[in-house]
Amino acid sequence: MKRAGSPTQAVSHAAAVAVDASHADAALIALDWGTTSLRAYLYDASGNVLATRASTAGIMNLPRSAEQGGFDAAFDDACGAWLEHAPAAPVIAAGMVGSAQGWLEAPYVDTPASADALVAGIVRVKAACGVTLHIVPGVLQRGELPNVMRGEETQIFGALGEETNTADSGKRALIGLPGTHAKWAVVQADRIERFHTFMTGEVFAALREHTILGRTMLTPDLPDTGAFLHGVNIAREKGQAGVLATVFSSRTLGLTGQLSREQQPDYLSGLLIGHELAGLDAVLAQQQSALAGQSLRLIGNEALCERYRLALAQFGCTQAELVKHATERGLWRVASQAGLVQPAAKTARA
Amino acid sequence: MKRAGSPTQAVSHAAAVAVDASHADAALIALDWGTTSLRAYLYDASGNVLATRASTAGIMNLPRSAEQGGFDAAFDDACGAWLEHAPAAPVIAAGMVGSAQGWLEAPYVDTPASADALVAGIVRVKAACGVTLHIVPGVLQRGELPNVMRGEETQIFGALGEETNTADSGKRALIGLPGTHAKWAVVQADRIERFHTFMTGEVFAALREHTILGRTMLTPDLPDTGAFLHGVNIAREKGQAGVLATVFSSRTLGLTGQLSREQQPDYLSGLLIGHELAGLDAVLAQQQSALAGQSLRLIGNEALCERYRLALAQFGCTQAELVKHATERGLWRVASQAGLVQPAAKTARA
Repeated sequence: MKRAGSPTQAVSHAAAVAVDASHADAALIALDWGTTSLRAYLYDASGNVLATRASTAGIMNLPRSAEQGGFDAAFDDACGAWLEHAPAAPVIAAGMVGSAQGWLEAPYVDTPASADALVAGIVRVKAACGVTLHIVPGVLQRGELPNVMRGEETQIFGALGEETNTADSGKRALIGLPGTHAKWAVVQADRIERFHTFMTGEVFAALREHTILGRTMLTPDLPDTGAFLHGVNIAREKGQAGVLATVFSSRTLGLTGQLSREQQPDYLSGLLIGHELAGLDAVLAQQQSALAGQSLRLIGNEALCERYRLALAQFGCTQAELVKHATERGLWRVASQAGLVQPAAKTARA
Repeated sequence: MKRAGSPTQAVSHAAAVAVDASHADAALIALDWGTTSLRAYLYDASGNVLATRASTAGIMNLPRSAEQGGFDAAFDDACGAWLEHAPAAPVIAAGMVGSAQGWLEAPYVDTPASADALVAGIVRVKAACGVTLHIVPGVLQRGELPNVMRGEETQIFGALGEETNTADSGKRALIGLPGTHAKWAVVQADRIERFHTFMTGEVFAALREHTILGRTMLTPDLPDTGAFLHGVNIAREKGQAGVLATVFSSRTLGLTGQLSREQQPDYLSGLLIGHELAGLDAVLAQQQSALAGQSLRLIGNEALCERYRLALAQFGCTQAELVKHATERGLWRVASQAGLVQPAAKTARA
């Protein structure tokens, strides 16, 4: 139940320099800079990714404090070698780096939000090395239950990228981004119309690590799909009392011998994802829609998306397509739309 | 959102001995022995409580390990002085002391559970000092979502005690026990027919202390009833997406300036209690019942029960009566029914 993304790896200057010698045609550097991780992408002029870098230098995990130049240090560490070879490459960044706790705040763009609105909301910050970062804003949905995203808006436009200006672009699309804070967005006419946040991943971790439920759990050698689907279906069919009630069954099914200690983590995960999807189904119903028969897209960690596909099938949704590389595609698309790069040979990325 | 009960106080031997000189007519010692606390009551032959003791020596917090005589040490510390003056007083105990992690396991009694069934399930353990403790079993409701209670069953029979053998005893009654693991029990014909558990208090603590929601919170000087009721009503009216979604609004309402940092704890508490009551209402509806117009009883910490009364009123339930002393009444009742005491002058307790 981790945030979407590639596995974290230590940044190695030596390795990067060796690779960078071949990146003379670098056209864009893009950053997906979140709370606990930083991923960097180097593109050629056709939008092909030449190299990627990943570190744990998220905005809450900088190598030193922001006041002591922590953002500059993390940026230099991730992209310094690339910039030596391509000092004129434009730099774009999305994610929590644009939050109030980030490098420079990029105020939220209201829903419905188009890619053009994101471009208009870009803020610029000059790094100590002289390079200008273009920071993409997040999206805010106002109301009694406001919602915010930072980073996911760029992934969503990456997932939509291929169908822009096609017959599909007017259709209503549902996009799910499983993770710590799972997002579900309704997109229409190439705009993020509305979205919902479910704290599924973070609540799972808090319940497992900091409540009585974790005390009887053991981590299984392999994920137990049966226990997971059991949880999904309890939430779907017997979840009327709500998640505050059903989660207690992770313990009581253990007490009655119906669930082993090793099965309890997957069962609890299934319960929470089942409640998330039941809640999503309930709000879709208010919009004369439903998960059953829905054709939707998922963005994120492949193993986690696979669990969601299994869970979605229990709700009658069997067409959930995993969109790969949505982050790097989205960053490229926003940079193109902002005029930072001239996508001369866009078809090369199809 | 603490477990029901009187404030914890250090046990003082010196003070206890001074008081005990007047307890020559002691007829029963009773213990409410939970996970994190131990409360002891000394009764006269009419069931009046002569003295109480409280310590933090719950079964997970013994002065030394169980293998090293931790249960004996805690028992002696709480009741040793009383037993010196009344060595023949029978001793009864309820709560987690009868769990698999307790002093001696008292296997659960199945629902529907009468006080007679509890009596039949009592197990006896001999303390090192020679005294026999009579441990009351908990109650188990089997099924796809099993439920368990230990200690609450005794409180419930304490709350019902006054109406036994009256015209009221055949009526269906709803009893709520707010707390770490809130319980709602349906009682009919003096039996616990079924019950539900909501992990409201423990989930609140986990969300506040171990998720992003706590980071923007500040503790207010005084509880903010407006923020609390705001949360209750969001859960009641706009809670369709479920608690995994609505809790995120505690953060986003802060980001949009609609909720101050000091208001966020009470708002989140209201959200969770609102979801609990909405979930309870949903399961009552399956039994052709509802919170609206319901006359129910609450057992537990007075301040917390008062919050529940405010929340219940939002659901149209304006008759929620706080039952005081349910624990000590329940222990006395089960001891009487078990023949440990002869309630010669029961009317003196009315």
